[in-house]
This record gives sequence, C-alpha cells and structure tokens, in this order.
Amino acid sequence: MIDIALMGIGKIALDQHVPAIAASPDFTLAATVSRHGSVPGAPGFTDIDSLLAAHDGIRVLSLCLPPVPRFDAAARAIRAGRHVMLEKPPGATLAECHALRRLAEAHRVCLFATWHSREADKVAAAKTWLADKRLRSLRVTWKEDVRRWHPGQDWIWEPGGMGVFDPGINALSIVTEILAHDIHLTSATLDVPENRQTPIGAELAFYHPEGAEVSAVFEWRQEGDQTWEIVAETDAGTLKLSDGGARLTVDGAAAPALDDDNPLSGEYPRLYAKMARLLARGGIDMDLRPMVHVSDALALGHRRRVAPFVE
Amino acid sequence: MIDIALMGIGKIALDQHVPAIAASPDFTLAATVSRHGSVPGAPGFTDIDSLLAAHDGIRVLSLCLPPVPRFDAAARAIRAGRHVMLEKPPGATLAECHALRRLAEAHRVCLFATWHSREADKVAAAKTWLADKRLRSLRVTWKEDVRRWHPGQDWIWEPGGMGVFDPGINALSIVTEILAHDIHLTSATLDVPENRQTPIGAELAFYHPEGAEVSAVFEWRQEGDQTWEIVAETDAGTLKLSDGGARLTVDGAAAPALDDDNPLSGEYPRLYAKMARLLARGGIDMDLRPMVHVSDALALGHRRRVAPFVE
Repeated sequence: MIDIALMGIGKIALDQHVPAIAASPDFTLAATVSRHGSVPGAPGFTDIDSLLAAHDGIRVLSLCLPPVPRFDAAARAIRAGRHVMLEKPPGATLAECHALRRLAEAHRVCLFATWHSREADKVAAAKTWLADKRLRSLRVTWKEDVRRWHPGQDWIWEPGGMGVFDPGINALSIVTEILAHDIHLTSATLDVPENRQTPIGAELAFYHPEGAEVSAVFEWRQEGDQTWEIVAETDAGTLKLSDGGARLTVDGAAAPALDDDNPLSGEYPRLYAKMARLLARGGIDMDLRPMVHVSDALALGHRRRVAPFVE
Repeated sequence: MIDIALMGIGKIALDQHVPAIAASPDFTLAATVSRHGSVPGAPGFTDIDSLLAAHDGIRVLSLCLPPVPRFDAAARAIRAGRHVMLEKPPGATLAECHALRRLAEAHRVCLFATWHSREADKVAAAKTWLADKRLRSLRVTWKEDVRRWHPGQDWIWEPGGMGVFDPGINALSIVTEILAHDIHLTSATLDVPENRQTPIGAELAFYHPEGAEVSAVFEWRQEGDQTWEIVAETDAGTLKLSDGGARLTVDGAAAPALDDDNPLSGEYPRLYAKMARLLARGGIDMDLRPMVHVSDALALGHRRRVAPFVE
C-alpha cells in the first residue's frame, strides 16, 4: 500500500476521493491538508509545507483544491520530490500547466492531470464503437442546476473558476477522448450573469476536419430533469452516451458490454488505479485538450449579460 | 528567388509585407489573394483556391488576413503542399494552432508562426544582457492610441480580435523571448467598452519562479505620446527596452551594439529572411507562448465595463 495525502477537503474530496482511497487496493490515506476540512482517522495539516516537512514517507499527493490555489501547492509538492495527482481542471491557466509539466520532468516525479468523466462506465465502449465510423454530427447537451451541484462554491463565479465550464469541461474531456479527430472552436456564446464574472450558460460550435457538425450546449439554470448526454450521428447509426457517460445506446438499443482490462467500477476508483499504474511505470499523463477548448471559448466567446445569479 | 503569394491585402500587408518582400534577396511577390485589396504588378486572386489551382509554382504563402479566417486559408494551403508563414497571432484559437502544426507535420511543409516584435533591433541584445542577471522585476508598459494605429479595423473588437491584446501580444512575444524563465498569469483586469466584446485596456500580473515581480499594462486609450517599453530591474542594473524593442539602455546609458549574424534591419525583412532559412532547413517554427498568455488573460481576467468606444 502506498501512503497518499489528500489536499483540499471540500465537497469533491469527501464525496469522491475519500471513498475511492478507502476502497483502493493501492493507496492508504495517510494525511490531509486543509484550512477547515478534515477526514476522521487521518492526521490533518493546515498547510502543505507542514505536511512536506513532517511526512517524508508520503510520496504521493492528490490535490482537490480549487484551480486558482492549486499551482502553488502542486509546485511545492513537486519541488519536494512528491508525485502529484490533480483534480480537473489541472490549473487556472494553461501557462501554469505547461510549467508544472516541465517542473515534474525536471524533478522526475509522476504527474497525473485527471479527467474523472473519462472514467465513466461507457466512455471506453463509445470510443471503440466510434473508431471505425464516419461522424456526421456530434451534439453535447450538459444541463444541470448549479444550486444543486455547487452549493456555496463562490469560487466557481470568480475569474479562473470557469463557471458552467466547470461541468462543461467534463463533457469536453469525454469528447476529446472518444473522437478520432481533433476539433477546434469556431464560435461561442457565453451567458454571463451581470453580477458574476463567469458564464452560467454557453453554446459552442466546433470545426471538424471531416465536416461533421460538432456543437455543445452547457447550461447551469436547468431545474428538474438534469441532462448530461452526447449524441453522435454516424454513417452506421446513432450513438448516445448519457448520464455523463454511464449509459450507452446505439440506435436506441443498449450497447453490448465491452471487454475492459480495468474491473473497477466508478470514476474515482478507476482514477486512483490509473495513478497506481502511472507510479509503477513513471512519467506524466497530462492531456490539456479539454482545457484548451475551455480557454478558447472563454477567450473567443461572445458575452451576453443575463439576469443576476443569486444563490 | 522564391515565388511567394501574399494573402490578405490590408494595412499590415501594404505597410510591412509588400516592402519587405520587395527588398528581400530571397522572395519575389508572385501573386496576391484578397477580396478587395491588390498590389500593383502582382496578379490578384479573390480566393485562395483559385490561386492554388492556377499557380503550382508558388510554393510559399504568407497570410496576413485577420486571425479568425486565417485557419481555413492556412489549412487549404498546407493541404495543397504549400509552405505557410502566419502573421501574428497564429490563429483565433489555441486548438486550431495545435491542429495546424499537426497538419504541417503530416504534409511535411514548413510552418512559421511569426512574432514580428521579436525582430525589433534590440531584442536579441536585451536577451543576451539578461541571460546571466538575476531578475527582480519586469514591467511592460504598452500604451497607444487605437484610433491612430487601427483605423477602421472593426474585427479587433469582435470575439477573436483580441482588442488591446493585438498590440499587447507583441510585448508578450518579446517578454517570452528575453526572459530565461517561464512565467504564468496570476491575475488580470480587463477594461471592456460596454458596446464592444474585447478589452481596450488590461493590467496583468505574472508568477516568476525566482519571485521577480512581473507585470504588464496594455492601454489603447493613450492620446499624445505613445509608449512601448519594457523595464527589467536586475541585481546588476536596470535594462530598458523602448520604442517596441528598437532602443535599449542599461542604467540610462545606451547599450553597446551586439554582434548580429543577421545584417538586415527592420522587423519584417528579418522575418522574411528567417522564413527563407526555415525553408532551407525544413521544419516548423511555432512558439505559442505569447498566445497562451493572452488566452489565459482573456479566460481568467476580471472584466470591468467601461465607457463605450466609438471610433
């Protein structure tokens, strides 16, 4: 078992990381770092330097804090020779992600920029099915209620918090995983509440080299039913990945189960299993494409001011 | 002499590219592509496909059209096996720049993403002087009058046009060239006219791995004196690069002339000489760092609504 420390004990850590580590055959939660949060049974530190000084035996840190403060923590951990696993998105800026990669290369530690939605149950099967089809269109519909999923998380509305792209980047991490060709943004419309800095809704269109129509709608004002689905029309039928990647149909019928060399179920257990494999072989796993698309959308997008958002 | 075609006959083409090609010992202007513009003595085409079909002998295209339509033209040229030189910025999105690079690799053509300000007279000397100094601070001040320098260029105010980052990216192209360490944005404030989509002013702060204070102010509302300068304080004196890189002082005294293996004077003549060298050796010269910083600033920046801009 490998001792691991978890930094940033908020909702995502408690909901996903702590149970995944508890169930992991590879890792033991040896410490936490958080200003306010803690996990019963794990020694708690309030800053990363105290942890790094106290625990030479903890070689791996998993960072779940929000993107803006994450670079500093990641850089300190890497400079102290620790391996690092990053919640998505891997940073607040693309430049810092490039810098972290170079730092990890220089210090010869493992760096894993995770995209948990890529580990959803049916993503690998969707990729396999699409591989030999010709794409005609792909439509992402990601509609959820921000009040239900991000209660009290003010940082999502601050610059760097990405707004509706916080869930939207999950969809883009799946799209970039399952498509055989690279795409790039051609237009974006961003709905920004007049009392906030980040979008509450977005509509994106992408160029696809074979001419397929690729588009996405991200919506945070969706009450009632929630939708996280990707529909891909091809020359050989229509694939539908729904529930954020957990369900898959082709032309309305459930897709056959796929041989899978990873028997674990659940996104976060699979991420920790991947981290264990990365530690075994060494190296860096940092695919920035989902973040490039978000950055392009925020940079290129046409902003519309919409009604104030009050939680 | 190598036949070259110039696409996008607007202000920058007529002011800079046409004279540079006319004076070049390497290139002959063999054709132009432009909806409205033309150059006396060069056959004019109104779309790139007509040029590509008509002129198999023109192996090199220099693209000066605005960033949004540039990808399509570049991709068509590369797919037709032509070498391509791009005005800055190299595209409207980072994803399309990555795609162009891969396309150029696949078609084995040369691709040069130019940054003309890096070719200003004293940039190489500034880089050499800074190389063995310890940086304490670096301050970019780029203040100009948009009405004087971008008359009638409405595209700069549209998404993808980048606003004040259109000149600001020139400063960032110099900063990323002369600094020994990589930096990344930590905060940005963007002043966006309430009737426009892109900023008219910006203030940026960067992280520097040795703790130097690195910052930039970009301003498009500057009447009267215009300022394009970079001041770097080091442990061994203060370097000042002014007039956009054309003048250099250290502690107030003119810096000594530097040996330079490129005797050409002028930014665009040096760019075309570089393109000729790239064609001779083959390959790709595409440094996206200036654009990554701009994209990070537009994605991360705190937007303030300011007075409408009316030209």
